[in-house]
Amino acid sequence: MKKLTLAALVLSCFAVSAQAQSSVTVYGALDLGVTKKSDTTMAIGKRDSNKLGFKGVEELGGGLKAVFQLETRFEPDTGTLESGSRPLFQGQSRVGLQGDFGMVRIGRGVTAYMDTKDAFDPFGGISGTAGLKGDVMVAGYTSQPLDVAGSSGDRFSNAVFYNSPEMQGFQLNATVATKETNNGLATGEASTMPLSMSGTYKSGPVAAMLAYERNGVETKVESLGASLAATPELKFFTSYARQDQSHIKPTNSVTRGWMIGANYVMGAGKFMAGMGQKSPDNVVKTKQYTLGYEYSLSKRSFLYVEGSSRRAATNVNYYGLGVHHNF
Amino acid sequence: MKKLTLAALVLSCFAVSAQAQSSVTVYGALDLGVTKKSDTTMAIGKRDSNKLGFKGVEELGGGLKAVFQLETRFEPDTGTLESGSRPLFQGQSRVGLQGDFGMVRIGRGVTAYMDTKDAFDPFGGISGTAGLKGDVMVAGYTSQPLDVAGSSGDRFSNAVFYNSPEMQGFQLNATVATKETNNGLATGEASTMPLSMSGTYKSGPVAAMLAYERNGVETKVESLGASLAATPELKFFTSYARQDQSHIKPTNSVTRGWMIGANYVMGAGKFMAGMGQKSPDNVVKTKQYTLGYEYSLSKRSFLYVEGSSRRAATNVNYYGLGVHHNF
Amino acid sequence: MKKLTLAALVLSCFAVSAQAQSSVTVYGALDLGVTKKSDTTMAIGKRDSNKLGFKGVEELGGGLKAVFQLETRFEPDTGTLESGSRPLFQGQSRVGLQGDFGMVRIGRGVTAYMDTKDAFDPFGGISGTAGLKGDVMVAGYTSQPLDVAGSSGDRFSNAVFYNSPEMQGFQLNATVATKETNNGLATGEASTMPLSMSGTYKSGPVAAMLAYERNGVETKVESLGASLAATPELKFFTSYARQDQSHIKPTNSVTRGWMIGANYVMGAGKFMAGMGQKSPDNVVKTKQYTLGYEYSLSKRSFLYVEGSSRRAATNVNYYGLGVHHNF
Repeated sequence: MKKLTLAALVLSCFAVSAQAQSSVTVYGALDLGVTKKSDTTMAIGKRDSNKLGFKGVEELGGGLKAVFQLETRFEPDTGTLESGSRPLFQGQSRVGLQGDFGMVRIGRGVTAYMDTKDAFDPFGGISGTAGLKGDVMVAGYTSQPLDVAGSSGDRFSNAVFYNSPEMQGFQLNATVATKETNNGLATGEASTMPLSMSGTYKSGPVAAMLAYERNGVETKVESLGASLAATPELKFFTSYARQDQSHIKPTNSVTRGWMIGANYVMGAGKFMAGMGQKSPDNVVKTKQYTLGYEYSLSKRSFLYVEGSSRRAATNVNYYGLGVHHNF
Repeated sequence: MKKLTLAALVLSCFAVSAQAQSSVTVYGALDLGVTKKSDTTMAIGKRDSNKLGFKGVEELGGGLKAVFQLETRFEPDTGTLESGSRPLFQGQSRVGLQGDFGMVRIGRGVTAYMDTKDAFDPFGGISGTAGLKGDVMVAGYTSQPLDVAGSSGDRFSNAVFYNSPEMQGFQLNATVATKETNNGLATGEASTMPLSMSGTYKSGPVAAMLAYERNGVETKVESLGASLAATPELKFFTSYARQDQSHIKPTNSVTRGWMIGANYVMGAGKFMAGMGQKSPDNVVKTKQYTLGYEYSLSKRSFLYVEGSSRRAATNVNYYGLGVHHNF
Repeated sequence: MKKLTLAALVLSCFAVSAQAQSSVTVYGALDLGVTKKSDTTMAIGKRDSNKLGFKGVEELGGGLKAVFQLETRFEPDTGTLESGSRPLFQGQSRVGLQGDFGMVRIGRGVTAYMDTKDAFDPFGGISGTAGLKGDVMVAGYTSQPLDVAGSSGDRFSNAVFYNSPEMQGFQLNATVATKETNNGLATGEASTMPLSMSGTYKSGPVAAMLAYERNGVETKVESLGASLAATPELKFFTSYARQDQSHIKPTNSVTRGWMIGANYVMGAGKFMAGMGQKSPDNVVKTKQYTLGYEYSLSKRSFLYVEGSSRRAATNVNYYGLGVHHNF
């Protein structure tokens, strides 16, 4: 009798949950603060991407799973879609299967290279002004030449994504897109399938990556990265990337970028320091120095302060102070 | 004492669920695959509609319920809204009441005719190239002439939707829209309320429908459909539609479409076969033959492969292979 | 042993809920009905705003909480974003902290003034034609001059929002926006930070507010409001607002609006009555009389009927009948 009651209880719990929300996890992040850049007025802006997503995993038996993920990106200071005009699911729109063979997904999402490199960036690939990712490392490169100007350019649409299982510390990732939009090239121009590949290795405190990406024929990128957790508190990072745009830029067609940096954890706080340099052939170099500090209020929320100095034809100093909340 | 604990437990379960998600079910579907059409490059595309929705039912007592549903449609290969520019809640945006009298809803949604006919289509009304619904059966007809070109045209905005309860196998459905946008006609032209009606009958293995729809004065559609479940595994389908566009097309104003087909279930697999023909008056006919196979990985996920041949002024062969995941 | 089972049960309940939906509440409202305005055809339309939102609260310990909220507004009769073109998160996009000090949020949302005044409106700030809020009280005023024409104009983007705790019935609210978009003024024109402040007082049946807002330099608004719950069933409301647009309108630069009204609750029903007047200097006055009735089907759903008469250069009579569902 008592057992029956307990069983009924368990069922009622599951029933309520199942009815309310059977298989979808709603998640996201808000990141907003006060920012100040040389020669501009104080502004409200983001340090990292802001997102609202919907994802789920279905167990199919025998270790096989169906997975899906839809992710909206938006501008938290004005409420618009990211950059005002990006696709509703700019972040990703993918469905696929996961099993012993790894994971295969289809749709739109971050390429193998772009997905791998953030682990070798002392700022974790933040998209804001203080980050080294956007302007220094990939130097205006975009995975999809058709994307609107200013696009972060990390993604392929119309693509198949593969991630291998981790084997003795090694993992392989590959993304291949179709030629259906001619990769943004003028019609009639010869086109090649966009391709992105990365390999990573982890062993104790050491990690490294090697990556190659081509967005059709327009640009080829080769990249290396490494990190070392010297102590549980102190971790070093370095990355290097080389872009070849000889197909569209007859001169100064190669751009090189590198960055080095470190994280130091102290209690609930984390210090981040980094510097990087971009060197297009025969063009003025860009150098950037960034310092940041994050103070965790919980596992999901932290406050941050950061400053950076970018030195190029025009120098830009930048300061930011804000809050990041994952949900 | 023990009882108190149990009661508290039940309450805590409900409380947790209620807090997390009181009354909204998040649901949707992703459908993506590799497609190849005559004279085009291989592409990533959908076979069926892709959607993300929010719905709920509130018990009001005495058998009365409040119901709502909001449904986004999107392109999974690029992450944009469906066709790039459709309304945020292209799928539907409706609220209403359900009770012994049936269901009355108000807002935007699929018309009575369009909602009924998919049960008489061997491919269940899939929207992709291989389906017979779009080009063969409704022949470019759109419920809302104001909708953007290429719209699936299955819906009324600004409408009231009624579904009767099922009575001895019979059900009646009606949709009436206001004249507020003048139904997409030039201002000043006489306008009529858009109207859609369907009746269905089910008895054991037999089902049938009869439908009428007019999108204001521009087009009138009459349609018939029937299905027969010959055995638990084998089901036959047929549909017929007649469009009259004499108001806007003085010649060749009547278009007729029909399709026949069957489904055969074998274990976790389902075979689908169908053919259809569209005959505008004095214009070259379109004939289409389609074969498909779905393999269920679970109740919510299946893989599919399909091929079709469409013969008209220009012939098109089509092949597709992909995955469908409901969440 | 039994205790273990109970503990496991509790954990399983939490686990299920946590997995399905860890920290996000999906909520919203649908409001739709049949409307008729003088000299226009019968239409399907809204009485109040329609929204779909995502919000959450995270306990950080010590009474501190992280809060976030994202809210989409849409047109339920057509499924588009509100007014067809508003930002995805037109309603709000905010993140912040709440504690003994009150609440600080950053992002986009309703200003302190606009958020406070609805409690002093017999119609609770409904946005439809019958409401006194839009046309009579704020007289076309918009918090953000850059917003599209016809915008409800209640919000600041790029802003910081503060709400004090309630102290002996008093509460203070303030919103400050940056000058980053120059507040919609022509570049080069002197600009001022947009600012909105309100104070409220509650003591038993009496409540009052005082507010000031300026949207940069273009418009200044001062407003007063009061309400009195004469009996548990009967409540009176009054509001007054004064707009100064002398910066952009050399003549007739001041507009005054006021409204009075009452609510009377009778069982599941609520009667609402109100009238208001708008008096731009030397321009024809607008007078409006509105009557409404809401019948609750539950705590979350009600039916409504309303009528209003607006008398100005052109007179408009309006009738509406519909359903409102909160989820």
